[in-house]
Amino acid sequence: MNEPTHDLRRCDATVSLAFTVLGKRWNGMILAVLGGGSMSFVELRRGVDGISDAVLSDRLAELTEAKLVVRSVEPGPPVSVGYDLTEAGRHLLPILDQLGEWAASNLAAPVR
Amino acid sequence: MNEPTHDLRRCDATVSLAFTVLGKRWNGMILAVLGGGSMSFVELRRGVDGISDAVLSDRLAELTEAKLVVRSVEPGPPVSVGYDLTEAGRHLLPILDQLGEWAASNLAAPVR
Repeated sequence: MNEPTHDLRRCDATVSLAFTVLGKRWNGMILAVLGGGSMSFVELRRGVDGISDAVLSDRLAELTEAKLVVRSVEPGPPVSVGYDLTEAGRHLLPILDQLGEWAASNLAAPVR
Repeated sequence: MNEPTHDLRRCDATVSLAFTVLGKRWNGMILAVLGGGSMSFVELRRGVDGISDAVLSDRLAELTEAKLVVRSVEPGPPVSVGYDLTEAGRHLLPILDQLGEWAASNLAAPVR
């Protein structure tokens, strides 16, 4: 039962920072679904199974504030609003893929 | 504004599975801290900054149920109880490292 070393603690600080965003329900899924490219709010809600409009709206505001998602407005008519990953958000995609592979190999699927 | 493809949706299902565990506050940090080796409850609570006894206890029960953490009892006296990662939990560690590096490069540190 060893005491964590200094280096371990420093590493934990960055992991902790990652989970300020990802350790919150839906955020990882929203980023993964946006990995498919620019989407409207409705398309995104359809992709993130089970999320409500109000929660998706809140999460998009947070992810935009964190500079992981960007909202783009294409002038119309009709005006079209889309959401997309920023470069910082896009850098997360290969790691999300690895998380998916890890889950498929190491977690039991939830009972439905 | 493209429709997600079939392959994308299948990939999202595994990412979604990963976030049934990791998209819950503290779980990622608990696993990262246990990456340092077997620890007592008190050592673990000290490593996961800000968690309460009750929440840590709940989360350890869940992570044990998910077969990512194992509780070991060394017969005493005094009896000593420790927590450790299973092999499935240990497979997550290199991905947590990458998440930490991603966060350090792409997220602003939270204001304290």
